[in-house]
Amino acid sequence: MRLDDYLKDAEAIVREELQAMLPRDSARTGNLYKLMLEYPLRHGKFLRPALSLAVCRARGGEPSQVLPTAAVLELYHNAFLIHDDVEDQSEVRRSEPTLHRKYGLPIAVNVGDGMLAIAIRPLLDNTGIVGLGKTLKILDVIARMAQETAEGQMIELSWVRSGEWIHSDADYVRLVYKKTAWYSFVAPIMVGAIVAGLPDIEVRQLKRIAIPLGIAFQIQDDILNLSAKSDTYGKDFCGDLWEGKHTLILIHALRSAAPAERSKALAVLRKPMPLVMQDTGDAPYYRGHAGSHEQVEVKSEDEINFLRHFIDRHDSISYAWTVAHRYASRFQRELQRMSEDWAPSIHKDFLLDLANFTIRRTH
Amino acid sequence: MRLDDYLKDAEAIVREELQAMLPRDSARTGNLYKLMLEYPLRHGKFLRPALSLAVCRARGGEPSQVLPTAAVLELYHNAFLIHDDVEDQSEVRRSEPTLHRKYGLPIAVNVGDGMLAIAIRPLLDNTGIVGLGKTLKILDVIARMAQETAEGQMIELSWVRSGEWIHSDADYVRLVYKKTAWYSFVAPIMVGAIVAGLPDIEVRQLKRIAIPLGIAFQIQDDILNLSAKSDTYGKDFCGDLWEGKHTLILIHALRSAAPAERSKALAVLRKPMPLVMQDTGDAPYYRGHAGSHEQVEVKSEDEINFLRHFIDRHDSISYAWTVAHRYASRFQRELQRMSEDWAPSIHKDFLLDLANFTIRRTH
Repeated sequence: MRLDDYLKDAEAIVREELQAMLPRDSARTGNLYKLMLEYPLRHGKFLRPALSLAVCRARGGEPSQVLPTAAVLELYHNAFLIHDDVEDQSEVRRSEPTLHRKYGLPIAVNVGDGMLAIAIRPLLDNTGIVGLGKTLKILDVIARMAQETAEGQMIELSWVRSGEWIHSDADYVRLVYKKTAWYSFVAPIMVGAIVAGLPDIEVRQLKRIAIPLGIAFQIQDDILNLSAKSDTYGKDFCGDLWEGKHTLILIHALRSAAPAERSKALAVLRKPMPLVMQDTGDAPYYRGHAGSHEQVEVKSEDEINFLRHFIDRHDSISYAWTVAHRYASRFQRELQRMSEDWAPSIHKDFLLDLANFTIRRTH
Repeated sequence: MRLDDYLKDAEAIVREELQAMLPRDSARTGNLYKLMLEYPLRHGKFLRPALSLAVCRARGGEPSQVLPTAAVLELYHNAFLIHDDVEDQSEVRRSEPTLHRKYGLPIAVNVGDGMLAIAIRPLLDNTGIVGLGKTLKILDVIARMAQETAEGQMIELSWVRSGEWIHSDADYVRLVYKKTAWYSFVAPIMVGAIVAGLPDIEVRQLKRIAIPLGIAFQIQDDILNLSAKSDTYGKDFCGDLWEGKHTLILIHALRSAAPAERSKALAVLRKPMPLVMQDTGDAPYYRGHAGSHEQVEVKSEDEINFLRHFIDRHDSISYAWTVAHRYASRFQRELQRMSEDWAPSIHKDFLLDLANFTIRRTH
């Protein structure tokens, strides 16, 4: 079975679970639940619930027992996306306008909050499905996950806000461990293992090997942001440069540049994003971090092109890809060793294929 | 003991608990936890944790057993305030700039998310303090609370967005039940009762009588928004009119007005807020609901004055106050009946004083 087909299967059952999980909407809830489903119905990867299902099934667990928790992880992911899009003032998500572009910022913030709220119930209902012990362990993982994600996001936002750019690769890895790896890989893999009833030591082992995969995944995300065709990518092209995100790619280029060139690049990176006036009939829209800067010059298209060439000049995408490749290989090697005595299954194959998928994907 | 002193005592112990509950901050968490404490340290009312403490103690419960949950409720309240301020684009909270005015919108959204995340841990740790049964009951209340609040917020935001203004008093009461009563009164009172070990039937009874108090509280909030002196109020003066919030006051005035006057008022209410350029050295700042309207005329100062007089012409503040008084009295009457056989205590007195406080407070 191809990895894409495995993800498609997961998408189908998780989407159905999400629809069953959310209350019916009515005029009396202002379409809150319909809007919660908007991003999930735009064909995401459904990677996180697929991971939970695959680990659970590869280790002999019942898929129906992990399904609600897997759906909750997809709900969290989409809530984070909505709030991230607000925070980054992104325009496009999964090839359509972001939620705040479509319904306004206040509704987008509240739909995200609603998703974080509604996610608690199925985790409590787990007592009837997997018993009290596993329920508490899962809640513990989710609590840690939400905290790590908020910390990671905060580190990134304060880097962008302060304009401080003295980072080592280790700083970047620590950021990504928190903002991406925890909720996208560590938590999904752990809950799959918990539901399958694996002993704590094996859960911890799986947790450890999930981390390098998460780091490889985020580096590839950063690469795609700079190089993907916009029609397959489905997000704002070069958005990271406009936003001044601190990627491994930029950290490498800045480190490799001569002082004058580095100063020039930093000056551009520290400028805010321009105010864009959309022609969608919507309100004037400030693309940039309100409150984060004085009324200074904003980044220009030419300056984004300069940054794009700056990155190429220092071969920083190849560098980042090499690092991603190293992390992905580490995951694959360690999973291979760990899974030697697991029975063969499509679920085990899916997990072993993930390293390749992570660094070769185009969306 | 005066009610204000009771609240001050609660503030002191809950603030200490909050500070102990949050992880130490460091450069490695970008001041996330420091910012979480910013609103609580601005001297809020601490009404919600005081309610939990009072109910618990009035019924013989141990204050130390309810304290972590009470602090979590204050954390939720402040997270909601941060996100509400973003959604309403408010400028002032507790007499200082709102969090997003001070640190930018992205950081404000994420600090709110972080607070919702960090709130889960103490609720799980309750197992060691009140046992598993009460822990699960409390989690259940909190899950319902978060959902009701998001639904209430969504109803309000979609009313504002759609410009639809055909509401009965019952529509307003239902909105306020969800957006305010649940998290400010119902949940705090229920968790106090649960920790005190009251039987389910008594918890439900207390829940029922909490609702009218919550409704009275929100009506008084709407009144204060229009009439308070800004130096004691600590929020944007007449912000509700600028935002076009659907208060009982406006619902009454619109209902009482002749058709021509009503049309004029509706036309003003449906206009968006103006873009305000702050002279605080911050970014240009769009005060209004991005995406919610075309580039049409915005509300003017004169129009806000017209609305303010429109309300006075129909005596709508007195009307709202009479309704608030009726709800507050209902709470007092029912609590009096219910608490006849409770031992006398300052905690019981605090609860009985709440009706008066709710409709006579000036902030």
